Amino acid sequence: TFVTSTSISGQTMVIDGGMPGSSDGRLPVYADAARNLGAVIAKRGFGLVYGGASVGLMNEVAEGALTEDGEVIGILPEWLESWEVAHRGLTELRIVESMHERKAQMAALADTFVVLPGGIGSLEECFEIWTWSQLSIHQKSIGLLNVDGYYDQLEAFLDHTVNEGFLRSTHRQLLLSESDPQVLLDALLAQTVPSAGKWEQT
Amino acid sequence: TFVTSTSISGQTMVIDGGMPGSSDGRLPVYADAARNLGAVIAKRGFGLVYGGASVGLMNEVAEGALTEDGEVIGILPEWLESWEVAHRGLTELRIVESMHERKAQMAALADTFVVLPGGIGSLEECFEIWTWSQLSIHQKSIGLLNVDGYYDQLEAFLDHTVNEGFLRSTHRQLLLSESDPQVLLDALLAQTVPSAGKWEQT
Ligand SMILES: [Mg+2]
Repeated sequence: TFVTSTSISGQTMVIDGGMPGSSDGRLPVYADAARNLGAVIAKRGFGLVYGGASVGLMNEVAEGALTEDGEVIGILPEWLESWEVAHRGLTELRIVESMHERKAQMAALADTFVVLPGGIGSLEECFEIWTWSQLSIHQKSIGLLNVDGYYDQLEAFLDHTVNEGFLRSTHRQLLLSESDPQVLLDALLAQTVPSAGKWEQT
Repeated sequence: TFVTSTSISGQTMVIDGGMPGSSDGRLPVYADAARNLGAVIAKRGFGLVYGGASVGLMNEVAEGALTEDGEVIGILPEWLESWEVAHRGLTELRIVESMHERKAQMAALADTFVVLPGGIGSLEECFEIWTWSQLSIHQKSIGLLNVDGYYDQLEAFLDHTVNEGFLRSTHRQLLLSESDPQVLLDALLAQTVPSAGKWEQT
């Protein structure tokens, strides 16, 4: 049985983002999109929860939100603090003991998840959070910010897993994707994630 | 600094695999490949560590190994035992308390990882184990069993993440891929995973 419910409280969002090589000529495209996303989140009245660093795309999102007077909470594990230079200008910075605790706090605070372009660390988090919604551990929406078609080939592969019988199309549809941050936010807000367990649906 | 070492002891392997819909006409292609992989592993003198169920592709791998008198260890969380019917014909079946403990035991026992065609649960585990090698939490090889081009589009996407500056090509190369189980095993055995940390390499 699917129970329809809307879990967006309008308070917080989690953003995950990779750190492209600074020498990469494509960096500005992604940095601009990340900063724009942050601004859109703040203008819409959402708070932002993210990894707490002042480097990489996630920093751009934070800066975009702060520029629009958004509330931004950063959650940083202490062992990363020296490497991932903490962002000192946030509304709140929490230093936690482990990556596990960081992920748990970010997931608990967030009402919806946006995945920026990123590397395999971002993908692992995306698939973990998506798996949790498939398992009904939470009923929060999740979407890819598909900047300049970055995730097109991943999405083609995911469609293939459905065609080959490894993923139900109802689960495939839980992962949204939009190139425009405003459109993505609207889609995430409109999304209702079923609360039925994987086992019942299989 | 990269330290060259071979971590394969020839004792154990972890297999992860999805559960395609039984009504799917493509199932036999994947089931045959999974069973063949199990047989190849046993004939080569490797043990097999897997999720312990008697359903899905992972069961096919176990059956393939058992047919060739291979040693097979299954690790099953107790809350899944009723659903994922435990395989009662294994060399050893361990019932553990959580998915976390299952993953930890499988990763500790294994010397190398093979990823079967699967859904988002398999992908999450693949990316997690791959991330661990990138972070030098282990130096174990990992490879996709690319049955009938199942993972081609994922690999195209991963190459794109390198081109766009989100993944170093040295890290990209840590994820092997072969369609033939024998060739994949040879490649996994030949693979040396660097022990340098992500931070030093970035
Ligand atoms: Mg994980």
